[in-house]
Order: sequence, then C-alpha cells, then structure tokens
Amino acid sequence: MTSEAAPTTRAPRAYRRLSVEERRRQLLTAALSLFAQRVPEDVSLDDVAEAAGVSRPLVYRYFPGGKQQLYEAALRSAAEELEQCFAEAAVGPLTQRLGRALDRYLAFVDGHDAGFSALLQGGSVVETSRTTAIVDGVRRAAAEHILDHLDVPEPSPRLRMTVRMWITSVEAASLIWLDEGKRPSAGELRDWLVEQFMTCLVTAAGSDAPSASVVRRALAMESAEGPAGVLARRLPAVLADAAHLL
Amino acid sequence: MTSEAAPTTRAPRAYRRLSVEERRRQLLTAALSLFAQRVPEDVSLDDVAEAAGVSRPLVYRYFPGGKQQLYEAALRSAAEELEQCFAEAAVGPLTQRLGRALDRYLAFVDGHDAGFSALLQGGSVVETSRTTAIVDGVRRAAAEHILDHLDVPEPSPRLRMTVRMWITSVEAASLIWLDEGKRPSAGELRDWLVEQFMTCLVTAAGSDAPSASVVRRALAMESAEGPAGVLARRLPAVLADAAHLL
Repeated sequence: MTSEAAPTTRAPRAYRRLSVEERRRQLLTAALSLFAQRVPEDVSLDDVAEAAGVSRPLVYRYFPGGKQQLYEAALRSAAEELEQCFAEAAVGPLTQRLGRALDRYLAFVDGHDAGFSALLQGGSVVETSRTTAIVDGVRRAAAEHILDHLDVPEPSPRLRMTVRMWITSVEAASLIWLDEGKRPSAGELRDWLVEQFMTCLVTAAGSDAPSASVVRRALAMESAEGPAGVLARRLPAVLADAAHLL
Repeated sequence: MTSEAAPTTRAPRAYRRLSVEERRRQLLTAALSLFAQRVPEDVSLDDVAEAAGVSRPLVYRYFPGGKQQLYEAALRSAAEELEQCFAEAAVGPLTQRLGRALDRYLAFVDGHDAGFSALLQGGSVVETSRTTAIVDGVRRAAAEHILDHLDVPEPSPRLRMTVRMWITSVEAASLIWLDEGKRPSAGELRDWLVEQFMTCLVTAAGSDAPSASVVRRALAMESAEGPAGVLARRLPAVLADAAHLL
C-alpha cells in the first residue's frame, strides 16, 4: 500500500508524460504485482487503477476487454520474463548452467507467488485456451533451451520425453514449494532439481543409445567438486546393500 | 456408432427397467465414452442422449445442471475408476507393484484419450475449481498409495516432493504419449516410468537420510532379473567415462 501512495499523488503529471507503451507497461506491472499477491478472482480493474495511480476509465482504454484482456496481457508479459530466465550461455558444466537458470526461475516463482500458483493449478475464472497456450509456449521454450544445451538437434523420443517430464516436475516442485511456505530454501530446491535432471538423463541413457552419448558428453564437462561429483560420491552409500542386483 | 444402435431399438423397454442408479450409471458411461473421443466443447447433451439411446429430457432430468453437471459427474466417476488403478497389494518388489499399477493407469489413459488430454491440459470450458479439485484429489490419492507402499507413515519433505514430482511427470508422460500417437508401446513407457521412479528415489536418498533408509529397504526386495537389476547392470556403461567425478 505505501508504495502506491506516491504514484497516486503524482498521477496527474505522470498521466501526461507517459507514452502509450510506457503506460501499458505501467498498468501491466501494477496488474502483475496484484496477481502475485492474490488469485485472479480477487483482483478487480479498480484495484489495478488504484495500484497504478490512474483512473479506472484509463485502464479500460488500454484494456477494453476488461480483466480477461488485462490478465492475458500480464500473463504474456510474465511469460516473456520467464523465458528470459532460461537464456544461458552454452559454456561450462551443464549442472552449472541449469543451476543458474533455475536460480532465476525460482526467483521468478518467488516474486509471482499467488499468480503463479493460480495459473498453474488451473480452474481459475480467467483461464482459457489462450492462457493455456501461453503457458504451454513457456514449457516448450524451456524444453528447447535444454535440448540446445544438450546439443542435440534431433533428440530421440526418450530424451525429449525425459526433458519434458523433468520440466513438468520442476513446475510441480515450484507449486509444492510455494504451498509449503517456500521451504526448503530456493538454493536447496535448485540442487534437488539439478540432481534429478542428471539422474533422469542417466536413467534414460541406460536404454537409449542417443541419450547415452549426450550423457557421456555432459558428464565429461562436469567436475568432481560440482553437483554431479557430489552426487556420484554420495550414491555408493545408498546402494551399498544392492550388490544382489548386479 | 454400431454399438449404440442396439440400445436405441431396445430403449422403450430399457427405459422402464433401469433403476435410478443404473440409469445414472448408463448416462455417465455414455458421456465418458463421448468425452474419450472428443474434447468437452464438442460433446452436447443431445449426443449423450443419442449414445445412451434415451431422450434429451431424460438426460436433463438426471443432470438438471446440463453439460457442466454431467461433465463433473463423469469426471468424478472416472476419478474413482482411476483411483482403483492404484490399488495394489503390498507384496513383492516395489518395481513390480508400481509396474502393475502403471499398466492399469496407462490402460485408463488409453481408454479415455481425448477427455484425459482435455482435462489435464486445462483451459477447457468445463474446467472449474471443482474439476481441478477432483483431479488434485486423484494426484493426492496416488501419492498416498505410493507412500503406503514405501511404508513411510511420516515421509520427509524431500521424499514427499520426490513422489509428487514423479506423479506429475507421469501425467506429463501420458499426455505426450497420447499426443505422439501412443508411442512407444504402453509396456515400454511403463518401464521408463518405473526406472525413473527408482532413480529419483535413489537421487533423493543421496542427501536425505530418511529417503536413504526407504531406498535400502526397497532395493533389498528387488531381484537381479527385475527392472532394478536390469537398470543397475546398464548404468556402469553409461558412467564408464565419469571416473573423474569420484
């Protein structure tokens, strides 16, 4: 509330000075911050107008389709921001690249909180085939980024499915994380997710030759000090009593 | 179409003989079979009446709330059926129990096809917070079943998250499977999913002591001929060049 007091008093001046694009951006930012705190059902255009320090008619001028249009625009803007999280140079060990992307992703989840949950849990009044398509676009973009980093232009069905399954399980983990008051820490959750990715990849490689060559290449870049090394040294203790399987 | 011809000609007689509960069940069965072939948007009460060989007013008598009510009732019935898939005696290796439950689950997915996709992909006109709650109930039931089989009354946060992540990734795999014309075979997909479950569990065990004791107990029941043994013998080849991590 306090952060919105200042814009309200400056509104008449800001009103004139913002370009159409700036104004649009300002309204979307206000909307996103409200959607982050409450489910879409509990956000009205009045709230957005108040948060942005502008009149309700102005909000309608920019979003004549009302809340649904505003929500979809805010979602598109969030989706672009989210896709930025995945941008990562193809340099260094895979676990480090993935870890950095996950740090940004979890910061995004942390910041968008209620809106993120409402969106992914489904059943919200503002959910349509269009909002579903936007979210699916983000998932697809994430999968493409990972396959780029794995450096496989033509992934095998098993590799593709493994990557897509992991992305969905990251989503599930984010929702559980929000639901459980953001515990464990974002850093710990990132480590869990990176480890899972590596072992899911190794599992797929066990019966899929194309995945196996991807894994060999990826592991060659890992270091003993990194997450793959830490995990590799931990597992023998877990498997100590499993010699009967070999 | 041919399967519906017979009921139509017998309709007047069947009309009188069915009890309320039988009639309700008949209408839900007809609805489920339609929802399996088309998205909910493309199923009308007329279609359900025709498929069940009854009049449209009769369908409305049973479901005065129209398609939405019918859809939710059909979904509830499908959810019960789905939960039955998970019922499995707590006997024998975990991978065998999981494999059998997955066989039933994949047969369900196979049979409910379009309706399954529409439901889980979201954004359908019939999706509401109630339908979302029904689907979440199934996910929760699946997680509880697995934790029962792991024999952990008080699972650690990491173990609980691992199980829930795997359930979501099974869902994702089912949707991809339907989307890709049900390839690979259901049996192969089941094997992938069982393997993933085991390695995700082993991964969690690497840094979570409660998960480690669960894994040790589970692996003790596995045999060299079973999926865990097959996987265990395959992985050394994948990891042959990864000695630098140890």
